[in-house]
Amino acid sequence: MMPVRSVSELSERVATCELCDASRGEVIAQTEDWRLILVDDVQYPGFCRVVWNQHVKEMTDLSEQDRDTLMSIVWKVELVLREVMQPHKVNVASFGNVVPHLHWHIIPRYQDDAHFPSPIWAQAKPEWADTSARRALLPQLRTALIARLR
Amino acid sequence: MMPVRSVSELSERVATCELCDASRGEVIAQTEDWRLILVDDVQYPGFCRVVWNQHVKEMTDLSEQDRDTLMSIVWKVELVLREVMQPHKVNVASFGNVVPHLHWHIIPRYQDDAHFPSPIWAQAKPEWADTSARRALLPQLRTALIARLR
Repeated sequence: MMPVRSVSELSERVATCELCDASRGEVIAQTEDWRLILVDDVQYPGFCRVVWNQHVKEMTDLSEQDRDTLMSIVWKVELVLREVMQPHKVNVASFGNVVPHLHWHIIPRYQDDAHFPSPIWAQAKPEWADTSARRALLPQLRTALIARLR
Repeated sequence: MMPVRSVSELSERVATCELCDASRGEVIAQTEDWRLILVDDVQYPGFCRVVWNQHVKEMTDLSEQDRDTLMSIVWKVELVLREVMQPHKVNVASFGNVVPHLHWHIIPRYQDDAHFPSPIWAQAKPEWADTSARRALLPQLRTALIARLR
């Protein structure tokens, strides 16, 4: 992994990347290599995103070691999501068609959610379950993620 | 990984799983642990699926070693897809909402494809590029995948 050399270099690298706009979620944990964002999505409380800080397009552009590092974070997040959010299923995906900046979506899914059993990028169902009980778990999720990824 | 003990046990385990229906694609390579399927999809020539043979729901239900094995196959497939199909982007996803049987979708994406820049599970665009030139690469892809995953 190439280290980030300076704040100005970092700013330049991320200037045009909407993923790098922290306002789209809360940064829960981060290192020089990656950051974990708790996405603010009323349909999908607990939706997490792990972003590789360097602008890299595909997983196979990373070294094997960096790939393992990134996936190990994804699995840690999946484990915490399962423990705290008790989803029916966890969905994991990396697209980056709009933003060629390697990132993983980790999404707790429930049979009564807005798209189940389709992926969340399909058309939403006309009705879905109220998510307030799941949203109430978010403080606990945040604490567990921080503890696990510290 | 628990070894498959007999053909009859295997048949029983997979009886109700549509992913285990080989008619939905061509098995390109397989071991006792996983199999690689070249999905027959006219919109997405080169669409590959790596299926973990045992019925396991989530990545974090696998041992770390099995997880690494499965992901290493996914990355090998991604590399071959990039080399042969020259996509604009590769999409990688694991859902299993319908079939709780661990499998990865690895999909070459192009700016003129049926859903770009959305994930392929979104609504298709009314028009998309003819894929015959990409379909013509499939014999070469098949050969390269077999060579890499043997």
